[in-house]
Amino acid sequence: MTTTRVDGRKNDEVREIKLTRNYISHAKGSVFIEMGNTRIVCTATVEDKVPPFLKGKGCGWITAEYDMIPRSTPQRIIRPQVMGRINGRTHEIQRLIGRSLRAVVDLKKLGERTLWIDCDVIEADGGTRTASITGGFIAMYDCFQSMVNDKVIEEMPITDFLGAISVGIVDNQIMVDLCFQEDFRAQVDMNVVMNSRGELIEIQATAEEKPFGREEFNQMLDISAKAIQRIIDFQRKILGI
Amino acid sequence: MTTTRVDGRKNDEVREIKLTRNYISHAKGSVFIEMGNTRIVCTATVEDKVPPFLKGKGCGWITAEYDMIPRSTPQRIIRPQVMGRINGRTHEIQRLIGRSLRAVVDLKKLGERTLWIDCDVIEADGGTRTASITGGFIAMYDCFQSMVNDKVIEEMPITDFLGAISVGIVDNQIMVDLCFQEDFRAQVDMNVVMNSRGELIEIQATAEEKPFGREEFNQMLDISAKAIQRIIDFQRKILGI
Amino acid sequence: MTTTRVDGRKNDEVREIKLTRNYISHAKGSVFIEMGNTRIVCTATVEDKVPPFLKGKGCGWITAEYDMIPRSTPQRIIRPQVMGRINGRTHEIQRLIGRSLRAVVDLKKLGERTLWIDCDVIEADGGTRTASITGGFIAMYDCFQSMVNDKVIEEMPITDFLGAISVGIVDNQIMVDLCFQEDFRAQVDMNVVMNSRGELIEIQATAEEKPFGREEFNQMLDISAKAIQRIIDFQRKILGI
Amino acid sequence: MTTTRVDGRKNDEVREIKLTRNYISHAKGSVFIEMGNTRIVCTATVEDKVPPFLKGKGCGWITAEYDMIPRSTPQRIIRPQVMGRINGRTHEIQRLIGRSLRAVVDLKKLGERTLWIDCDVIEADGGTRTASITGGFIAMYDCFQSMVNDKVIEEMPITDFLGAISVGIVDNQIMVDLCFQEDFRAQVDMNVVMNSRGELIEIQATAEEKPFGREEFNQMLDISAKAIQRIIDFQRKILGI
Amino acid sequence: MTTTRVDGRKNDEVREIKLTRNYISHAKGSVFIEMGNTRIVCTATVEDKVPPFLKGKGCGWITAEYDMIPRSTPQRIIRPQVMGRINGRTHEIQRLIGRSLRAVVDLKKLGERTLWIDCDVIEADGGTRTASITGGFIAMYDCFQSMVNDKVIEEMPITDFLGAISVGIVDNQIMVDLCFQEDFRAQVDMNVVMNSRGELIEIQATAEEKPFGREEFNQMLDISAKAIQRIIDFQRKILGI
Amino acid sequence: MTTTRVDGRKNDEVREIKLTRNYISHAKGSVFIEMGNTRIVCTATVEDKVPPFLKGKGCGWITAEYDMIPRSTPQRIIRPQVMGRINGRTHEIQRLIGRSLRAVVDLKKLGERTLWIDCDVIEADGGTRTASITGGFIAMYDCFQSMVNDKVIEEMPITDFLGAISVGIVDNQIMVDLCFQEDFRAQVDMNVVMNSRGELIEIQATAEEKPFGREEFNQMLDISAKAIQRIIDFQRKILGI
Repeated sequence: MTTTRVDGRKNDEVREIKLTRNYISHAKGSVFIEMGNTRIVCTATVEDKVPPFLKGKGCGWITAEYDMIPRSTPQRIIRPQVMGRINGRTHEIQRLIGRSLRAVVDLKKLGERTLWIDCDVIEADGGTRTASITGGFIAMYDCFQSMVNDKVIEEMPITDFLGAISVGIVDNQIMVDLCFQEDFRAQVDMNVVMNSRGELIEIQATAEEKPFGREEFNQMLDISAKAIQRIIDFQRKILGI
Repeated sequence: MTTTRVDGRKNDEVREIKLTRNYISHAKGSVFIEMGNTRIVCTATVEDKVPPFLKGKGCGWITAEYDMIPRSTPQRIIRPQVMGRINGRTHEIQRLIGRSLRAVVDLKKLGERTLWIDCDVIEADGGTRTASITGGFIAMYDCFQSMVNDKVIEEMPITDFLGAISVGIVDNQIMVDLCFQEDFRAQVDMNVVMNSRGELIEIQATAEEKPFGREEFNQMLDISAKAIQRIIDFQRKILGI
Repeated sequence: MTTTRVDGRKNDEVREIKLTRNYISHAKGSVFIEMGNTRIVCTATVEDKVPPFLKGKGCGWITAEYDMIPRSTPQRIIRPQVMGRINGRTHEIQRLIGRSLRAVVDLKKLGERTLWIDCDVIEADGGTRTASITGGFIAMYDCFQSMVNDKVIEEMPITDFLGAISVGIVDNQIMVDLCFQEDFRAQVDMNVVMNSRGELIEIQATAEEKPFGREEFNQMLDISAKAIQRIIDFQRKILGI
Repeated sequence: MTTTRVDGRKNDEVREIKLTRNYISHAKGSVFIEMGNTRIVCTATVEDKVPPFLKGKGCGWITAEYDMIPRSTPQRIIRPQVMGRINGRTHEIQRLIGRSLRAVVDLKKLGERTLWIDCDVIEADGGTRTASITGGFIAMYDCFQSMVNDKVIEEMPITDFLGAISVGIVDNQIMVDLCFQEDFRAQVDMNVVMNSRGELIEIQATAEEKPFGREEFNQMLDISAKAIQRIIDFQRKILGI
Repeated sequence: MTTTRVDGRKNDEVREIKLTRNYISHAKGSVFIEMGNTRIVCTATVEDKVPPFLKGKGCGWITAEYDMIPRSTPQRIIRPQVMGRINGRTHEIQRLIGRSLRAVVDLKKLGERTLWIDCDVIEADGGTRTASITGGFIAMYDCFQSMVNDKVIEEMPITDFLGAISVGIVDNQIMVDLCFQEDFRAQVDMNVVMNSRGELIEIQATAEEKPFGREEFNQMLDISAKAIQRIIDFQRKILGI
Repeated sequence: MTTTRVDGRKNDEVREIKLTRNYISHAKGSVFIEMGNTRIVCTATVEDKVPPFLKGKGCGWITAEYDMIPRSTPQRIIRPQVMGRINGRTHEIQRLIGRSLRAVVDLKKLGERTLWIDCDVIEADGGTRTASITGGFIAMYDCFQSMVNDKVIEEMPITDFLGAISVGIVDNQIMVDLCFQEDFRAQVDMNVVMNSRGELIEIQATAEEKPFGREEFNQMLDISAKAIQRIIDFQRKILGI
């Protein structure tokens, strides 16, 4: 069956990824990730303390913050500081990014430190939360590598690669890495996070328009797994490991 | 293999559900749902307007708010109005409840109205978000039924039943309807929302401690599906339909 | 002179009180108090520190928080965390509850600890602030008793019973324990808090519609005193002391 | 029995009151009231709309706001805009001022307008809430008189004078118009608002240290009534009516 | 060339300044400054700590807060605590006041202390930010003098006088100390802060309506310098030094 | 006299400017401006309404918002939405940007529309507010050009070019376009905004460490004027006009 995606891609085709490391000169880990028109600055910052619930446990923490500059979207977004609150979508996304990154880090090796991953979307064309995870992973890697080099920590605390992708059902067809126009009219919208062994770290699947069966769901997982492996291959190439 | 769950349940056993309808005299839909020690007041309120993005489209909206009273948990929670903000977990949960309820309602039949589902947790012992969905569905049903009776709307806009359950891997065993003590040390934590045909509406799966494979994931889905069917059977009995 | 109150009560008749102790399993003091349709969860929590102005003085503190769930009232209330602020009525009420409870406690016997009394209104049908005081007293008693049993404190710091009632002038008649429909059109609205000896702890009287003379005021105090003694008798029975 | 009050006053003696009308040139009603060292700017402003709950009812509203400049007190106060919230005491006071003023105004004669009474404390030495009521009454009078002169309203909507005073039990003695040092160690603290006929408009009595009996309470009311009549005499002289 | 300013002043004429010291009894430095109808309470408060960035550096800090009471202006201002935020103009002004005062103080002589200068505008008729600087300087002087007298600090940390004035181009004429009506239609609006030697401490010049040349700018500086010297002469006389 | 600036520049040398137009695909005006390591995204957005004070006057408005991503600076900045408020520096800067842009636009030609200029700093190395003005001008130009092309407005409302530069005294030497390390220890810090005719639009000069005389000030203005003309030459080349 022939499909015509908005940008001519095949259903299982991921948009071209570009990744600029050391994007900001004074951050130890900072990345500019581009997936199609989706473009995000991801930075990593280490703070020498942990949240209250972890004090004295000899264990670190990773937390993420996500925001969009006002014209990253077709309609200008009102800044959260002007609205007076962080909206629910932002909260949902930054919790997802934080949980995903923590899943591939041995927090004990980090010591009593907090790693802040900041993801600031410059332009949004679908898949900003998954691109934040993919790019945030590299920023985290570079930051940890610099800490190892500076002998702040003894060994790299990362335990595996981490890739993420969106997948959905659009016009009754399953496709990965939805751009904004596809995402907008998706019947089912799903985000998948996996490690290099294809194991699952996060699944968030939502029936936007109609419920989905187990079979469709398994097909979505299959196509995601392939896409994530390609993303992790890209990460390997970038990091040269 | 023998397991000993904290409260002696079998791994696929859902805690006893109690549901008191018309719990608050002046709400058209109000339910007190108890799943073990988890106890939640769910109310439904209709407002004769829709959010700005829906104005003039002849279509309604459903939104949910979730909160916990301070001593619903072992440690007293500081109220969000004292903290000065709604926390991320709350945002994540109320978005999940709202999306799930919208998935089984024909919003056009609701007209330009907003249905508010308020879920206030009196005591929390695991599974508050899924119990909020299960209980919120009944509050919504009663509210819509009252609107049909009052000829405010022509026909019931609900298209299917809606049940939700938590499932997790605890001590390497898959079990449903985790209580707080199980949830606390779960390796994998998942929430599943389905309709009466066993179709999927929401999946949120998180590797808290270690990634999980497709096989484990499928087993978790299987056990959830059975649990949700039991919950929907309970809803049928309650509603007598 | 014959009066017909909304619910057939006599002018000096208090609505039936029901009180469920240990309403929430993990709180050391927790009560569900019902006065007619007014229903409130009152919980007590001890924190091992005091506000800054009391530090190092060997003396404890009692503070109260009050809130209503959105559908506790005929019109859904917008949550304070959504409004972005606690409203004036809430502030006024929680200050009244805190002051009243402190008046019957020897704060030195509490040591440098803060007792939090949380009053969450599930359904409001008049008299929520006075029912919060009456119920909050029992929650406080149970919490202190548990602290005595656990040898956290040496002796019970409570010095007297504490009862509270609303009273008003409705249709030119003085009546106690106003329900919502009476409260709504009261000419004078008053809340009285007393101890078991009939001594006054708080009086808040407001001319809603017309000023009142000393004679009417004294009659209101008389009828309140009787009602409060009945409430304190109920507390005695409940506590078996 | 001889008493020695901090400033040599007799127990029933009100501090000297000074009142400067037209204190701010562009406000139609503005007063600088001084009672001893307590000094407050009270202004009146008319707005041509009413709160939502009064729309279309042909009736006006009066609302009060109260604040203290940071060094009005011995310890510098952090501004509410810096704290991020209005505190409970402020809320309690501004509600009291608003209710008291509304009690002597025929709101129908005001039309669908809101009168804002702003009370900003320059120096606080006890009795700021009662001085705000006494001074706010004159600011309101002047504003309404100007509206009558400008034929914005047909007749003066004020129905009576309005005076307020604090009273308390200090060192077992009943005394009126407590200054800060007296207020600080009062066993009982009470604020009374009355009209020119000696009728009661508001009573707020609090046992700060020990409960009080009916007899003491009646004595406090008696001494308040005399003090308020002197305040209302002062208002008559000021207004020349 | 003849000009007719709103209040008959000459273009280089400063309004009459009145200054009441010790305006608030419990503040060690407090001033009521009047420049025409512009009237401001300025108070100084010492706090025994410094902001985090100065901790352990043996150096003090000076910070200013500025606010206006609601009816200080022709249109009633909504209080910042009601708006939920401090507006940009207020922030801009309080930063200017703080920087200016710091410029004439040897912060090392202050020790690790913070001086708070609070400027609360009672009536605004143009030039409130410059009058706040001029009056705040005297409040600061009195506070430091009292600290020297109490041997809290060894010597006066003030290094020079500090005067400030507004200047503008109105109807193509350069004039100082603009009142509200002049300020409102000024083409260019400038605030200048200088010490007693005529050296510059702050210049903020804004082309409200049309850009200005170097020549006009120099004339504005000249006229400001003269006005500020007159203000500093006034300060000398007030302080008797 | 030989100086050695941190990056080897001459005292009157502006860092290399790079400017990428159409940086964000869906904004009608969007620019990425780089001045040395200072890098800022400036976007322009038109909204079809004006602030309340301009309604019905047939006149438009220009407003600017400025923010920094957390790792744009050596120390990670806490986001304003997490702090719960916009800080004073941000307010001061965005007011400066807005005023400067309005000074070169005929707001009547814009009609009743608001132009939002968003300046989001990706990396900060001194001079972010002046680079925001220089870059914001191009974003505004492109947005207005697109409106002219789309016949939304009849003619270009821009009346002149607009350039801005920082200048300061560092180690007793006057230099332009300070980088962070220079700015940090500047004795005097000044920002100047001019049009193509060398006329002044904004001057903000601050004595950080010691007051400055008229002579130094004039030298700073001279060096700024030259630098701004070079910036405006750059703008001319970029725009080809």
